Amino acid sequence: MSVTAAEGFVAAGCHAGVKRRRYDMALVATEDLKPVAAAAVFTQNKFAAPPVLLDRRRLRENGGRAAAIVVNSGNANAGTGKQGLADAEAMTVATAGALGVPKETVLVCSTGIIGTPLPMEKILEATPKLVAKRSRAGGHDAARGILTTDHKAKEAVVRGSTFTLGGMAKGCGMIAPNMATMLAFLTTDAEVERDALQAILRDASDRTFNTLNVDGATSTNDTAILLAGGRRGAPDMKEFADAVHKLCEDLTYQMARDAEGMTKMVMLRVTGAASDDEARIAAKSIAENNLVKCSWYGGDPYWGRLLGAAGSAGIAFETEKSMVAYGGVVVSRGGTNARHDAEAVAAHMRNERIEIEVALGLGTGSAQVIGIDLGPGYIKENSRTS
Amino acid sequence: MSVTAAEGFVAAGCHAGVKRRRYDMALVATEDLKPVAAAAVFTQNKFAAPPVLLDRRRLRENGGRAAAIVVNSGNANAGTGKQGLADAEAMTVATAGALGVPKETVLVCSTGIIGTPLPMEKILEATPKLVAKRSRAGGHDAARGILTTDHKAKEAVVRGSTFTLGGMAKGCGMIAPNMATMLAFLTTDAEVERDALQAILRDASDRTFNTLNVDGATSTNDTAILLAGGRRGAPDMKEFADAVHKLCEDLTYQMARDAEGMTKMVMLRVTGAASDDEARIAAKSIAENNLVKCSWYGGDPYWGRLLGAAGSAGIAFETEKSMVAYGGVVVSRGGTNARHDAEAVAAHMRNERIEIEVALGLGTGSAQVIGIDLGPGYIKENSRTS
Repeated sequence: MSVTAAEGFVAAGCHAGVKRRRYDMALVATEDLKPVAAAAVFTQNKFAAPPVLLDRRRLRENGGRAAAIVVNSGNANAGTGKQGLADAEAMTVATAGALGVPKETVLVCSTGIIGTPLPMEKILEATPKLVAKRSRAGGHDAARGILTTDHKAKEAVVRGSTFTLGGMAKGCGMIAPNMATMLAFLTTDAEVERDALQAILRDASDRTFNTLNVDGATSTNDTAILLAGGRRGAPDMKEFADAVHKLCEDLTYQMARDAEGMTKMVMLRVTGAASDDEARIAAKSIAENNLVKCSWYGGDPYWGRLLGAAGSAGIAFETEKSMVAYGGVVVSRGGTNARHDAEAVAAHMRNERIEIEVALGLGTGSAQVIGIDLGPGYIKENSRTS
Repeated sequence: MSVTAAEGFVAAGCHAGVKRRRYDMALVATEDLKPVAAAAVFTQNKFAAPPVLLDRRRLRENGGRAAAIVVNSGNANAGTGKQGLADAEAMTVATAGALGVPKETVLVCSTGIIGTPLPMEKILEATPKLVAKRSRAGGHDAARGILTTDHKAKEAVVRGSTFTLGGMAKGCGMIAPNMATMLAFLTTDAEVERDALQAILRDASDRTFNTLNVDGATSTNDTAILLAGGRRGAPDMKEFADAVHKLCEDLTYQMARDAEGMTKMVMLRVTGAASDDEARIAAKSIAENNLVKCSWYGGDPYWGRLLGAAGSAGIAFETEKSMVAYGGVVVSRGGTNARHDAEAVAAHMRNERIEIEVALGLGTGSAQVIGIDLGPGYIKENSRTS
């Protein structure tokens, strides 16, 4: 079900031949083919891929509405220049033609290797078949069609009192040898005006997808899209926003757990910063520090590295006021070792999910990120393209 | 010879017992025990270690002059709070006592694990022996005494027309399991006024030590000190500045080559940036990107990752104007693949030293950093404290 759990949406997945064997295309569309409110957040990378450039333009020009999204995996259509933009456009034209809708109502996403042109012949040949396969039951096939080296499809459903939200995603960063992309597609049968929908998706993304820091890399293709069909009328907006947050959070955890080479997922909380912004900078600096990430892999509660990373983050920091806790056990205070139950900490470090707090003692700013350890699996996956 | 190559300096190294077996203390001093001009640059980390805090204060109070430097390896005396500051002071007091000089003229450095108090009894017991061993021939022993998990001592000498410069260093970042510190000690028999000496050391450090980016981490203990004894009179200042640069560059290459787990050293040049600052930001962003570093380990000329890192660095970037070259061979132009001799690039990637240029095509800003690949050796060394 997932992306077709909400009333009014159909989906499909198929094998076009971009990848050797597995599904490599997906479609999500409205059942009645009418365009609906579409919110979207894209990568901030200035080396953004052609499909991202095209979608941004489409949503600007058509007032933020879409009837369908076509996706291919295996090739990111990034670093492909003018040809890439023409190919992205051609994917929407072919999909629109097969569906019988204006091309302006079709969005497109690609994920996979960078710098190689799309195999357009295969994609264009497969598109009518993909479109013909669409159905209410096609959600899982679509979720398979967007994967790169993910181990499993990522799907989630949240049911509200008057609406349903469904979604699918593929992971980011270390999940893939060359495909450092996060894609998420969400649908709902609630009726939500486009600007409100955009604000809700932006906020939920910031608090979920954007807190997942696998390796500090910002992909050329990151995209999250939320379509609101409206069949079941206007929801309670607070309930709806909470549901979007919950759906995005569920998908984020699924992505973290599936990261290639990942053995530890770290809920890293920075508190007591001079501001929320400074807390975010410190959390990012710690979560991206390779010495810290290696200590997580080794299950080593090496608090000195956390403070070293915080101290060089360029934010306000005073050693004497700092505190570090692993799994709620304070191991350092004032920049020096604190007496603690080492066995309790060691036991906590053996978990797949580790909780760490770094308190700066300077203000009320706080932030949380999800960090991933750095182990041999990451290098194995990322050292060769092929 | 190294740090005692210049006239007027003596040195020594010894085993105090901080480490199991190897040398773990070093001394550099003026032969006549008179304080001389001392320039120094320290870590910018706000979680700076007690010896760094003490040295900064000493140099402020004594007008930038020193007669001796005492160093221990195996323990960084960092994350040790007030006790750490008292221990750093005690190291200078003991050294000053044995030499017969005021403690204000003695500087101290430590490198090794963070968060554990120094074994002061062993250090204080060894100090008189260390001081008694000092000689013109003790340079190599001193160079051994400052190492942590470095594989070899790093020493260099540069001879000018009227002066000699000598130095020793220990490496940074991935060189060590828990000892992410760079230390460098330089001496000269030239006579250079303290402010000029400081400016020359600062400039040389920025262009050499600070361009070495092993893993983006800024240590709690990084220190470079240059003592100018003056026996051979005032040098030609241009020649002297060039010689300091050359000495620092030599030591930097030695550190890069000895980085634990390192298989590739990458001379990464960013050109055509809007400013030198933006070039530095882009170069740092690329050199710290784990996907990029893994591609270096694999010898894979994956230019898409370089542009992905530049595009997310927060600087001015326009895909269409970009160019990427490996070993002088242009592989990408305008953000897309450029026809090139793939065999020439593959041959270049097999070298231990790789040259990469990323041209942004926007201005005249440029910067160079020395990047290190990310391979299994790094994780092996950094995943457990013990």
